[in-house]
Amino acid sequence: MIGITRLLAACLWVCVCGPLLAADALPSWKDGSSRQAIVAFVDKARRPDSPDFIPVEQRIATFDNDGTLWAEQPLYFQALFVFDRIRALAPQHPDWKTTKPYRSVLNGDMKGLAAAGEKGLMELMVATHAGMTTDEFSATVSDWIATAHHPKSGKPYTSMVYQPMLELLAYLRANGFKTYVVSGGGQEFMRPWMERVYGIPPEQVIGSQGELKYEMRDTGPVLVKQAKVVLIDDNVGKPVGIQRFIGRRPVFAFGNSDGDLQMLQWTTAGTGLRFAGLVHHTDAKREWAYDRKSKIGTLDKALDEAAQKGWTVVDMAGEWKVIYPPAR
Amino acid sequence: MIGITRLLAACLWVCVCGPLLAADALPSWKDGSSRQAIVAFVDKARRPDSPDFIPVEQRIATFDNDGTLWAEQPLYFQALFVFDRIRALAPQHPDWKTTKPYRSVLNGDMKGLAAAGEKGLMELMVATHAGMTTDEFSATVSDWIATAHHPKSGKPYTSMVYQPMLELLAYLRANGFKTYVVSGGGQEFMRPWMERVYGIPPEQVIGSQGELKYEMRDTGPVLVKQAKVVLIDDNVGKPVGIQRFIGRRPVFAFGNSDGDLQMLQWTTAGTGLRFAGLVHHTDAKREWAYDRKSKIGTLDKALDEAAQKGWTVVDMAGEWKVIYPPAR
Repeated sequence: MIGITRLLAACLWVCVCGPLLAADALPSWKDGSSRQAIVAFVDKARRPDSPDFIPVEQRIATFDNDGTLWAEQPLYFQALFVFDRIRALAPQHPDWKTTKPYRSVLNGDMKGLAAAGEKGLMELMVATHAGMTTDEFSATVSDWIATAHHPKSGKPYTSMVYQPMLELLAYLRANGFKTYVVSGGGQEFMRPWMERVYGIPPEQVIGSQGELKYEMRDTGPVLVKQAKVVLIDDNVGKPVGIQRFIGRRPVFAFGNSDGDLQMLQWTTAGTGLRFAGLVHHTDAKREWAYDRKSKIGTLDKALDEAAQKGWTVVDMAGEWKVIYPPAR
Repeated sequence: MIGITRLLAACLWVCVCGPLLAADALPSWKDGSSRQAIVAFVDKARRPDSPDFIPVEQRIATFDNDGTLWAEQPLYFQALFVFDRIRALAPQHPDWKTTKPYRSVLNGDMKGLAAAGEKGLMELMVATHAGMTTDEFSATVSDWIATAHHPKSGKPYTSMVYQPMLELLAYLRANGFKTYVVSGGGQEFMRPWMERVYGIPPEQVIGSQGELKYEMRDTGPVLVKQAKVVLIDDNVGKPVGIQRFIGRRPVFAFGNSDGDLQMLQWTTAGTGLRFAGLVHHTDAKREWAYDRKSKIGTLDKALDEAAQKGWTVVDMAGEWKVIYPPAR
C-alpha cells in the first residue's frame, strides 16, 4: 500500500506542480501589472499553505465572450451570423425584399438596421432560429463557423480569438479552475465550437436562451427552438445566469464592457480571495481601440468602478505581445 | 522524461482500473438482472477496445431525485419542507389561520390541501420562497435538512436516501461519468445538501427554477427569488433542462416515474450505447410499494415503455440488499 500511496503522491506532484511555471504558461503576456496580478492570484489560490487558499471545488472562473475571448467589431459576430442566415434563407421568403428589417440586411443598409434597433435584431433572430430543432441549429452554426469569414479581416471568426486569453484559460485549468463562458450571446450559438476553440465544454457555456419545446416525432424526440426568450445573459442577467447554472459564486471573472459590470460586482462581493479583470481595447493598430463611447462593447461605468476598486485592467496595446493565434 | 511518462501511465492505471471491480463497487445490489445490466453497460462504455466505447466527455449520467435517489412518500419531501416553513412563519401572518390554503397546512387538513391542488401548493411555495435572497434561502434549507425529521420514519430526510443508488453514483463517477440530478424539485432546495449527501456539486443539480432578480443593496449585491417560474423540470421539461444546462444528450439516465419518461426517451434516442433505468417501488416492508395508481410518483406509461424497449427496471424488494444507508 505504501508503494501505491507514494506513487499517487508523486503523480499528484507532477499533475499539480507541473504546469505552474507561469513564464511558460502565459508566453503572450508581457511582464506587466496584469500578468503579475493574475500570477499572484493563482499562486495564492493554489498553495495549500496560503492564507488565501481556495479549495478546488470553489475555483470557478467566468469569462465574457464578445470582446473578452474573441473580437466584437464592427458588430457582434452572432449578428453577422444572423445576417448571413437572412441572406441564405431569402430565396424562400420573397417578401423579405420589401419588408423591414429583412430588407435592410439584404441591401446592406446598416443605417436602416441601426434604426430597427434591438427589436429589429430580435425579429431577425427569431426568423432565423425559431422552429429549428436544436440539432439542426447546431449543424447550421457548425457549418457557418467552419466557412464564414470576417468582413474586415477576411479571417475565419475562430481565428479572431485572443491568444493571451486562450493561454489564461489553459493556465487556470492547469491550476484546478473550472472555466466558464458567461456571455450575452446565444448559448446554442456558442456551444458547437467552444470546446474545440477554447477547451470549454457545452455544460460550461452560459448564454442568452430561448424557450425549447419537446416534441415526439415519427423519427424520435426533438427539441424545437421557440420565439420566447427565457434569459438575457447580460448586465444584471449575468449573476442570474451564474447562480442558475453554477449555483456557486465565481472567485475569478473577466469581462470587457459595462455588460460585465454586475458579474464582476457579484464575483468580488464574495468573501476571501477574488479576481476581477477587464480587457481594455486600446490597440487601434492590431485590433480596435474603443471604450466609453463605443456602441458595441461600451466600457464606461465598469472602467470607473475598476479604478475605484483596484480591478485588473488589461492594456491590450501595451500588455499583449500578440493578439490573435499564429496562422496555421 | 520516460520516468515521468511511466509514472503517469502507472498512476492512470491505478486511477482508472482501481475502482472498477464491480463486486466491490455495488455491494448493496444482489447479483440480479439490473446489476448485471449496469455492470455490462459500464464495461462496454469504458474499455478503449470496445466497439461501444464512450469518450469520457460524453459520459453524462442523469438521475431523477424524488423516488430515485431518496424516498418520496407520503409526499415529496420539498412539500413537507414548505409546510414546515408555513408553520414557522405563521406567527408573522395571523391571517393565515383563516385563509386557504395556509389554514389547511396549519390544521393538518390534508383533504383541504389536496383540494387546493397544484395551484395551492404553488401559492404556498411562493409565500415561503419569494422575496428571500438566494443566500437566505440556502441557509433556511440547510437548517431544515439538518434538523427536520420524516413524519413516518422519524429519521432525518438525508437518511432516507437509497444506499444502492449512492453506490451506483460513485461507481459511475469512478468510471469517468459526470453525474447530474435532473429533478422536478426546486434547484435551490436541492443544492445546499446534495454535494455532501450524493457527491453531486451545485453546478450538476438541475431542477425547477424561479426567476431571480439582481439588486444592489447597501451591503452589496444580492439575488432575490421572484414568484415567477422559469422552468418546471419535469416530464417534457426534463429534456429541456438537460439541453439548457448540459447541452449534450446523456448516455445513461435513471428515474422512477412517468415524470421521467421523456428524459429516458431523450437519452435512449441518441446513437451508440445507451442505458435507461427505472426504480420500481415494490417493497412495502422496507419502503413503500406503489406504481400505476399512486398519486405521488405514478409509474404507468413509463413501465409499459420500459417493457417494450427493454429498459432496466429495478425490483427494489428483490434486487436491493438494503434500502437506506446504515445508521451512523
